[in-house]
Amino acid sequence: MAHGIEDVAREAGVSTATVSRALRGMPNVSEATRARVEVAARRLGYRASPSAAALATGRTRTIGLLTPWINRWYFSNVIEGAERRLRAAGYDALLYSFAVSEQGRTPRVDPEVLRRRVDGILVVGLPLEPAEVAALEALGVPIVFVGTGRGDHPVVGIDDVGLARAATHYLIGLGHRRIGHITGTPDDLRSWTPPVDRRLGWASALRDVGIEVEPTWEEFGFFDIEGGTASTHRLLDRHPELTAIFVASDEMAMGALLAARERGLRVPEDVSIVGVDGHEISELVGLTTMAQPVEAQGAAAAGIMLGLIGAEPRRVEDVQGAAAFPTTLVVRRTTTAPRD
Amino acid sequence: MAHGIEDVAREAGVSTATVSRALRGMPNVSEATRARVEVAARRLGYRASPSAAALATGRTRTIGLLTPWINRWYFSNVIEGAERRLRAAGYDALLYSFAVSEQGRTPRVDPEVLRRRVDGILVVGLPLEPAEVAALEALGVPIVFVGTGRGDHPVVGIDDVGLARAATHYLIGLGHRRIGHITGTPDDLRSWTPPVDRRLGWASALRDVGIEVEPTWEEFGFFDIEGGTASTHRLLDRHPELTAIFVASDEMAMGALLAARERGLRVPEDVSIVGVDGHEISELVGLTTMAQPVEAQGAAAAGIMLGLIGAEPRRVEDVQGAAAFPTTLVVRRTTTAPRD
Repeated sequence: MAHGIEDVAREAGVSTATVSRALRGMPNVSEATRARVEVAARRLGYRASPSAAALATGRTRTIGLLTPWINRWYFSNVIEGAERRLRAAGYDALLYSFAVSEQGRTPRVDPEVLRRRVDGILVVGLPLEPAEVAALEALGVPIVFVGTGRGDHPVVGIDDVGLARAATHYLIGLGHRRIGHITGTPDDLRSWTPPVDRRLGWASALRDVGIEVEPTWEEFGFFDIEGGTASTHRLLDRHPELTAIFVASDEMAMGALLAARERGLRVPEDVSIVGVDGHEISELVGLTTMAQPVEAQGAAAAGIMLGLIGAEPRRVEDVQGAAAFPTTLVVRRTTTAPRD
Repeated sequence: MAHGIEDVAREAGVSTATVSRALRGMPNVSEATRARVEVAARRLGYRASPSAAALATGRTRTIGLLTPWINRWYFSNVIEGAERRLRAAGYDALLYSFAVSEQGRTPRVDPEVLRRRVDGILVVGLPLEPAEVAALEALGVPIVFVGTGRGDHPVVGIDDVGLARAATHYLIGLGHRRIGHITGTPDDLRSWTPPVDRRLGWASALRDVGIEVEPTWEEFGFFDIEGGTASTHRLLDRHPELTAIFVASDEMAMGALLAARERGLRVPEDVSIVGVDGHEISELVGLTTMAQPVEAQGAAAAGIMLGLIGAEPRRVEDVQGAAAFPTTLVVRRTTTAPRD
C-alpha cells in the first residue's frame, strides 16, 4: 500500500507542511527534524513527488542565478558550469545580477523580480545581508550558495583559509619573509567570505613562522586587472622591501605582473607573485597560482539544486564535500627564492 | 488641448495599433509609416506614455538579455555594459543564456521563459534563425541586437569586414603574403555575422594585393583559448610556410601564442599574430589587436532599448552610428616583418 504525506508526518511526529519543507530541502527545518522525516519517508517508501513540488513552486523549470558580476572569471565560469548542468536536466537559467557597490553601500537585492519565475535560486559569490537572505527565503524556493553562504542552506566552495595558507607557506618555503597581500574590496572584508578567509590564511601562515603581518602590507585590488596593477604600485611604493605578493585572484595577479613591468622589476627575480584561480591565461603568462575547479563548483551547486527541487534524486554525495572542493598549487615562472 | 492616440492615428492615416507599434519601436512597421506617425505625434504634441507602454508590456521594469555564452570576454563585457546602463535607469536585467551547439545543431530559443517577464529583449551575439526571431517578436516587446541582427530591429556593432581588412592590410604592409586565419565555429559561417565578416575582410584584403586565400589557410578556433591553441597547431602543421595569422578574437590569439611557444616558434620573429577585441590581458602578453569598445556597445544597446520602451526620451543619436562603433589597431609585440 502506498503511503502518503500524512503517514510520513504521523510517523515523524511533525506536520505535513514540515514534511514537505524537509523533503524539498527548504530552510527553517532543523537537521534533526529533516533526518527524522527522511528516515520516516524512507521507511514508508514515500518520495516527495517532483510534479507536486513543481506545482507548489509554479512549475517554471527555471532556476534563478544571482550574481554580482558577469565579467569576472570566477563568476562567469561558475555560472557556465551551473547552466550546463541545468540545461542537461531540461532546466533553464535566469541570471539576475546585482550591483555590488565599491563605495561601501550594500548590494541591492530585490527578490520580487524572481517571484513565480523560478523553482530555486543559486546565489553565486554574492555577499548578502541577513535581511536579503530572509527576503529570498520568503520566495519559498530552495536556495544554494556558491562561494559564500548564509543561513541554513547548502554551500558549494573551496577552503579559502587553507589555499591561502598553502600559497603563503610555499613562498615561506622558498625563503620569503616579507610577503604582501592583495585582496578584493573594503566591503568584502565585512561580508564576503572568500577574501576574508584568504586574508586570514595569509596572515596565519606568516604567524606560523613568527611573523606578524603589518596592516600596510595589504592593498585592495577590486578583483580585476586594473585594480591589481594600481594596488601593486601602491603596495610597492610603500614597501619596496616586499619580496613576494600573495594575490587573491589571477586577474589581479596579472595586473600585478603589469605593475612590476611598469616599475622595471623582474618577476620572479625581484618579486615573486602567486595568484588564486587557475585562469586559462595563467599558463600563457607563466603565473604561479592556487587553481580551483570553478565550472565544477557551478555544476555541483546545480546538481544539489536539482535534488532539492525533486527534479533528480537527491544524492548525499553531491552535498558532502561540496563545501570544500580541492585546490592545487600550480608552480610556473612567477615565483622563486628571494635574492638576499 | 491634449491630443490622444486616436488623433495621431487619424492625422497619420493609420490605425491606433500601428501608432502604438511605431512609437514603441516595434517591428513590422515600415520606416515610412514610422516616420509619418512620428511627424504626426510631434505635430500634435503626443508622446507615447511610458506608463501606458509599461502597462501594455506588463510593467516589469526588467529587460531580458539573450546570449549564447557567459564566460567569453566579448559576451560578458557587452552584458556588463548593458546591465550598468539599465540599472542606472532603474531597470533590472534578466539574462537568459542559450546553448549554441558546436556540433551543427541550431540554438534553442524558447521565448516562453521571457513572456510577461520583460519589457524588452537585448540579443547579444546570438545567431538566431528567422523562426526564432519571429517567436521573440511574438512576445510583443521591442528587440535590439548587439553584434549580429536580423529583421527590422536596431543593431549595435562594429564594422567586422573593415576591421579584418585593416588588420590584414597592416600585416601585408609589414611584408607578409602568406597570412592564415583562425575563425570561430563551422556554425558561425552559416549564420553569425562577425566571424563571417572577419573572414571576408581577411580574404578581400589579400585579394587587394593579388593573393587568393587557400581554403586550407583557415581553421576553426571556437572562440576560446584552447581552441586557439589547437587550431594554430593544425594550421601550422599543414602550412609551416605561413608567416602571420589573423585571429578573430584575442582569446583565440592567446591560444595561438601558447601553440607557437609549444612549437618552439618565436613570436613575432617566426610568426606574427594579430587578434581582435582589446582584451585587458592583451597588454600583458603584448598582443597586437584590433580593439573594440565592448562595454560601450552594451550600454548603447541598453540606451536604445530604454528609448524604445519609453523609459527615456528616444534619441536619434543613440541609434545613428551604433551599428558601426570604431575599432582601433593597437600594435604591440606580436607583429613584425617576416624574416625572408
